Amino acid sequence: MSLQPILINGEWRASDAVGEFEAVNPSTKTALPETYPVSSAAEVEEAIVAGHKAAVALRAMSPDAAANAVARFLEAYADAIEARAEALVELAHAETALPTSPRLRDVELPRTTDQLRQAAAVARERSWCLATIDTARNIRSMYGALGGPVVVFGPNNFPYAFNSAAGGDFAAAIAAGNPVIAKANTGHPGTTKLLTEAAFEAIQATGMPPALVQLLYRVKPDVGYRLVSHPLVGATGFTGSRSAGLRLKEAADKAGKPIYLEMSSINPIFVLPSALEERLDAVAGELYASCSMGVGQFCTKPGFVVLLQNDKSEAFLEKVAEHFQSPPGVLLGASGVWTIGDAVEKLQAAGAQLVTGGHEVEGPSYRYANTLLRVSGDDFLKNPYALQIEAFGVVSLVVFAQNVAQMQTIAKVLEGNLTGCLYSHTGGDDDALYDQVAPVLRTKVGRLLNDKMPTGVAVSPAMNHGGPYPATGHPGFTAVGVPASLLRFGALHSYDAVRPHRLPPELQDKNPTGTMWRLIDGAWTQKDVA
Amino acid sequence: MSLQPILINGEWRASDAVGEFEAVNPSTKTALPETYPVSSAAEVEEAIVAGHKAAVALRAMSPDAAANAVARFLEAYADAIEARAEALVELAHAETALPTSPRLRDVELPRTTDQLRQAAAVARERSWCLATIDTARNIRSMYGALGGPVVVFGPNNFPYAFNSAAGGDFAAAIAAGNPVIAKANTGHPGTTKLLTEAAFEAIQATGMPPALVQLLYRVKPDVGYRLVSHPLVGATGFTGSRSAGLRLKEAADKAGKPIYLEMSSINPIFVLPSALEERLDAVAGELYASCSMGVGQFCTKPGFVVLLQNDKSEAFLEKVAEHFQSPPGVLLGASGVWTIGDAVEKLQAAGAQLVTGGHEVEGPSYRYANTLLRVSGDDFLKNPYALQIEAFGVVSLVVFAQNVAQMQTIAKVLEGNLTGCLYSHTGGDDDALYDQVAPVLRTKVGRLLNDKMPTGVAVSPAMNHGGPYPATGHPGFTAVGVPASLLRFGALHSYDAVRPHRLPPELQDKNPTGTMWRLIDGAWTQKDVA
Repeated sequence: MSLQPILINGEWRASDAVGEFEAVNPSTKTALPETYPVSSAAEVEEAIVAGHKAAVALRAMSPDAAANAVARFLEAYADAIEARAEALVELAHAETALPTSPRLRDVELPRTTDQLRQAAAVARERSWCLATIDTARNIRSMYGALGGPVVVFGPNNFPYAFNSAAGGDFAAAIAAGNPVIAKANTGHPGTTKLLTEAAFEAIQATGMPPALVQLLYRVKPDVGYRLVSHPLVGATGFTGSRSAGLRLKEAADKAGKPIYLEMSSINPIFVLPSALEERLDAVAGELYASCSMGVGQFCTKPGFVVLLQNDKSEAFLEKVAEHFQSPPGVLLGASGVWTIGDAVEKLQAAGAQLVTGGHEVEGPSYRYANTLLRVSGDDFLKNPYALQIEAFGVVSLVVFAQNVAQMQTIAKVLEGNLTGCLYSHTGGDDDALYDQVAPVLRTKVGRLLNDKMPTGVAVSPAMNHGGPYPATGHPGFTAVGVPASLLRFGALHSYDAVRPHRLPPELQDKNPTGTMWRLIDGAWTQKDVA
Repeated sequence: MSLQPILINGEWRASDAVGEFEAVNPSTKTALPETYPVSSAAEVEEAIVAGHKAAVALRAMSPDAAANAVARFLEAYADAIEARAEALVELAHAETALPTSPRLRDVELPRTTDQLRQAAAVARERSWCLATIDTARNIRSMYGALGGPVVVFGPNNFPYAFNSAAGGDFAAAIAAGNPVIAKANTGHPGTTKLLTEAAFEAIQATGMPPALVQLLYRVKPDVGYRLVSHPLVGATGFTGSRSAGLRLKEAADKAGKPIYLEMSSINPIFVLPSALEERLDAVAGELYASCSMGVGQFCTKPGFVVLLQNDKSEAFLEKVAEHFQSPPGVLLGASGVWTIGDAVEKLQAAGAQLVTGGHEVEGPSYRYANTLLRVSGDDFLKNPYALQIEAFGVVSLVVFAQNVAQMQTIAKVLEGNLTGCLYSHTGGDDDALYDQVAPVLRTKVGRLLNDKMPTGVAVSPAMNHGGPYPATGHPGFTAVGVPASLLRFGALHSYDAVRPHRLPPELQDKNPTGTMWRLIDGAWTQKDVA
């Protein structure tokens, strides 16, 4: 059986493979027909060199032309994805078992093309680069491209919206003016290849450098470490497991290469007592809906719920447990079953008690029973870190705090998370408690929510899909939302006394688009330098 | 002899010392009378815990009150420094041998108080936090304090302006709402203590948390690693040697703690051939002035000059060599003599030839002869990394490129630097060559200059005192200039559906200062949310 081709330097070609693998249909536990190569160190080196050449070619274009070309490419790519929508939906469904509708066709695919088009608008408009002009001293600065390709490792759970060749990191890296080397998630290599075909069509249609987007399906760990630490690479964006993320981080850190990681999160939910008095059933329903969305395989799934111990909270647990009796959906793959089972076992070993679930569901597809666990606040505080591990499925741990002080203590020992939520009484009856818990929680999470579950991650300029370590590798950056997500893939470029005609258009006296926002002598303006 | 006290948790007290050291007067090579402690792991732990409590106390203040209190503190501190100006100048001169005037009294001290006052204005005004409001989705974001103290390691070369208890990192960390644990540079512990006394007076006068600023003079390496990686620490700012910086970086990286490092830079200067035709003498004079400022002990000292090989460039070298015959100033300490000697030896071993200097100057003070070296482009390219080491003194290496292509190749193999300069013909005769070299150089440096030496680092919003690794640890951040330098010490905080009265004032509908800039629905404005 012939191996699927890789895309290197504008050419779909046979891989110098050092291994091979197949994707598996999670609904049937059977291998899909295509076989994909594991790339050698030599061809990874080729991709890096070609990606670097593409970065050089991009900066050789006039900056105005480059920004507009990047925007046109992103838009052409979005169009090309839409033209392949049916094939993409069919293949992604086969590779991930995610429902074709509404999830793949009606939610994730439009979100992905919308994200690409938002990135195009931002690239064309250019306010993202935070152009800053000090006329008195004639010093000017902006964020510019990194000078080398960005490597993107996509996760298994969003075959389009976080795809290494089409998702948020991809769009941000390209919009900031960098080529991308996509390392496919091995759960959906075919979907990634289809997307990359659309990207390559858009590259050709818009006359971009051929190595603007390149595709590898898999590499051995040491080759992965080389990839993120290579001198010619600009930066890396990674979404995946904490263990893989930390190994890549170590390699990149040693080489001084920026790496942005989204690794794990249990997304604590504090349901304050008067909120339960007021709307127990509604909150229980929201919690289950959020936990079970995407079969619990969301970075923002609420995996940790803190309640004050009393009759109402016991009733809440019962209500949630009823919801958890629902039949579980199909997981993304066999590894889902193992990793959930392993996490549930570890949580129990650390003191959590099973309320419901806790076992694989035998059958023709990969399923694990919806699983609810509980632990007292006292027991949690005996072993707080072992009880904060992420279980990537419909699994949640409910912690019963003995009192308000203990609830605050629980917040204090939380590790970094993407999100944290507080549900409180609409009339203000929980406000005193809110004020004790929220300030602590604020420092532990990237996004703080009120009365709302965290699983919806809007593509908003004010989104932070990020947070303190170990949720990510740095508390100052978001992986979702333009223009902020572009800053990860920019370098701060200051120009001191540089002659006017040599400045990038973004920093010349005349506003290059007429609408770009620039910080001139301390005031944000769309005007030219006076 | 009694040890000087440390400042922990608002108390000047005896150290639980595990060692001691003295500062040495570089002008006389004799120890100064005071003895300073090396802090134990236990007292460092105490400082961290107290610093964390101060962070909690700061966020317990109402945000408006906190921002204004921080600003008042920074201003009171600047005043308190000015009140101690004479004592500070005398002591810093004794500890560093830097000239009292103009350098210490008339340049560096005013720069330092100006920096503190600029940071105060920024803290009060609050545009630095990049408040972003998405009214349609009701998501709002801003940069907020890290939640733990910032550790600052200051360098030896600026006893005030980069002092761990008064300099740029200090001001940025405090203005962003974080307490500081200052680790004094051991070259000027007395100056740092005097500054910290002024800071503590300002803390008391303005009612700030007592542990807002704490002072340690020295720690053993493993305690330093603990300090930067401690779970309660927010981040670290370090300015110093590459070797020390990389060891701290490794420890901080492993713990997922942000660390901002300014480590080393040779600051390449490309003097293009027609510029030499036009103004050889002037450029030679500027080069020497920049090289010798602060006895060459500036992060931005031009240590690497690239010329096109021809008669003019040989004449330029001769002219520069004449300037280098001037008597050398006094270095900051004995280690200056060793490290310069070591670097000069390594450069020669790697193929550079000595033009002038290359030896210690014997006598009552620490001096090393001004040293100029040369190497051909061919020889440089045989050993490009060994020939890019920083020599922290009046030392510069001149590289003679055989032709234009080789000049570009030399730019390509440059490591990351803080700055890069191009001198070119004022009439445009070098423009073709400029266009070949500048785009390559742009990706290697934080600040690109034209016809200007890099040693002046203006405190400008458009400054980048930063650059790609190994000049720093991350290409996206600056250590000088407000408001940008504050972003290093902020975490991105998103608020999703948070009830209006619970939002920080910066994100409420009403603009909290009336002048703060906020990005509301894609437009920067000082208005309230409509």
